[in-house]
Amino acid sequence: MVEPKDNLSISCPLPQAGNAAASQRVQMTHGAGGSATQKLLDEVIRPAFDNTYLAQQQDGAILEPSAQRLALTTDSFVVQPLFFPGGDIGKLAVIGTVNDLAMCAATPWVLTCALIIEEGFSMAMLQDIVHSMAQTAKECGVVIASGDIKVVEKGKGDGVFINTSGVGRIAEGVSSLPGNICPGASILINGDVGRHGMAILSQREGLQFANPIISDCQNLAGLVASLIAEDIQLQCLRDITRGGLATNLHELCTAAQVSMHIAEEAIPVDDGVNGACEIFGIDPLYVACEGRLVVIVPPHEELRALQIMQAHAACPAPVCIGHVMQAQPGPQLILRSRIGTERLLEPVSGEPLPRIC
Amino acid sequence: MVEPKDNLSISCPLPQAGNAAASQRVQMTHGAGGSATQKLLDEVIRPAFDNTYLAQQQDGAILEPSAQRLALTTDSFVVQPLFFPGGDIGKLAVIGTVNDLAMCAATPWVLTCALIIEEGFSMAMLQDIVHSMAQTAKECGVVIASGDIKVVEKGKGDGVFINTSGVGRIAEGVSSLPGNICPGASILINGDVGRHGMAILSQREGLQFANPIISDCQNLAGLVASLIAEDIQLQCLRDITRGGLATNLHELCTAAQVSMHIAEEAIPVDDGVNGACEIFGIDPLYVACEGRLVVIVPPHEELRALQIMQAHAACPAPVCIGHVMQAQPGPQLILRSRIGTERLLEPVSGEPLPRIC
Repeated sequence: MVEPKDNLSISCPLPQAGNAAASQRVQMTHGAGGSATQKLLDEVIRPAFDNTYLAQQQDGAILEPSAQRLALTTDSFVVQPLFFPGGDIGKLAVIGTVNDLAMCAATPWVLTCALIIEEGFSMAMLQDIVHSMAQTAKECGVVIASGDIKVVEKGKGDGVFINTSGVGRIAEGVSSLPGNICPGASILINGDVGRHGMAILSQREGLQFANPIISDCQNLAGLVASLIAEDIQLQCLRDITRGGLATNLHELCTAAQVSMHIAEEAIPVDDGVNGACEIFGIDPLYVACEGRLVVIVPPHEELRALQIMQAHAACPAPVCIGHVMQAQPGPQLILRSRIGTERLLEPVSGEPLPRIC
Repeated sequence: MVEPKDNLSISCPLPQAGNAAASQRVQMTHGAGGSATQKLLDEVIRPAFDNTYLAQQQDGAILEPSAQRLALTTDSFVVQPLFFPGGDIGKLAVIGTVNDLAMCAATPWVLTCALIIEEGFSMAMLQDIVHSMAQTAKECGVVIASGDIKVVEKGKGDGVFINTSGVGRIAEGVSSLPGNICPGASILINGDVGRHGMAILSQREGLQFANPIISDCQNLAGLVASLIAEDIQLQCLRDITRGGLATNLHELCTAAQVSMHIAEEAIPVDDGVNGACEIFGIDPLYVACEGRLVVIVPPHEELRALQIMQAHAACPAPVCIGHVMQAQPGPQLILRSRIGTERLLEPVSGEPLPRIC
């Protein structure tokens, strides 16, 4: 087995042909916990994620006490391709967990990062992904406080999988649990749906558009913080990820034992996304976003919440798409179409869009 | 694509032949975030991990404030085989993170669980693994408060990978950071080294022993709690995982800028482990454990610490293996052999034992 000391060179930005290429790839030794792992940590990971927690060199990060309630969440990211219009797996892994914390009405605080890397993965790509995570974390105001690296044999993984877990702090008196949802409440979203899933799928299928579809992958924590700072009486927050708007609203209906009526004409969908959805035969209401959320507020807060959203960069098209109703007979998600007919929307059951996050 | 509703049956304990077998396997739809994912959560995950946090049905778990400092850690588990003498990937995933929290001198509190499952993986095995996680968590006194499921195509994973992240609470005035280590300190371990790695490797290579090697995988949090409860002045704690005793001690030497002298004859190694190590040509000091730790205490605390360890079930053979010295000229790990010669131990650099955790 080749010794790692001589063959881990990370200064070159791109893999090179011939023998040099082997030295630019992740090897099993990088996951052994010894000198190669340390070298990878010292040369790639720690410089990018540089913070006082990592400097503790402990099995975990030591955090200060918290007088506020905490939110704890985890997500693994297996998106393919790893780089897509509007982001990459590293950006997505940070945004995804930051947004999950924001949906708990928490201010994101610290994240962990655990990498499962396939043997032979490009060291340059790994560096790009790690830098993207570091940059995104900085933009979101979180630190990556603890981490882990595992390497699996070629053919036993798929490039890189990333797990991020996160802890956030929740202000006194705020709650966004589905159980808060009451009949009469207004259902707001922050913009057009389906971009992320269609950006991934279009790239995967090699579809070329005059205007390429860019993922909506973005930080929603700032927007949530603004709503909380303005004392909006939030009932519930939910980011529209796997399963799209319809599946996520259906989940809320079931959890809160309510029905929801939404209007098709009120739900913004980009023309390009609509076109791609037609080509693939997919309903945009079932396509994942990574920077869109549902905000459920009592009706008297609707206008004020929309005004706050209007002023926020993370809201390209804030709009009320419908209202919560009593569940009669059971929880239902009802869509009123453009021509005035009504139909029930069920959660996604097939798998039209594998591995979009 | 087959609809998931009819083909997810989890009541049968083992996969069956023929058409029925397909219904007992994880499919891409189980990772789509829709009805199949919900069914998997409702029928396999939530009943096993049953707790009030999961019942919140939120993107994350909401935890109470903590007046104590917190420890945060993460680990992904990619062990092969998934079931081994003395444990399985589920038990290991809980123990690994619980022990990492314990090494921060924290009382483990809540864990997350994120599964990356390969399409076609046996639903019965998944159930066994989830139950093992639930059982181990119960024994360790932690709850699995939040989770995630992803499914990747056949050939893009390896059965199942598990990430667990965890949060623990640290008592006032306690610290186990490497920076605390002072020259003169005693280096204690709780038992014989190398069982876990050799249990895995022996099973992987199909080696049969009269007395099979059983992994040392066990919860160390109770032991650490006892040491803290008895006010032992801990300088540092480190569980002996990847890279084995030698690599982990070397890491501490570097982090604390000290040297350590250890005596080969003081380090317990089971005869079976020694025999297997000889067959594979591996030094047992470089073989991972999953239930062994290093406890570093000032010399006047050595006897008392050993007495406390002696009384604890997690300590099959508590012993002092050496002492901390000043780093002269630099940090070194020095082994005195049975015949009195001394040699430097370096961190593991090759990869003799891939995927043991």
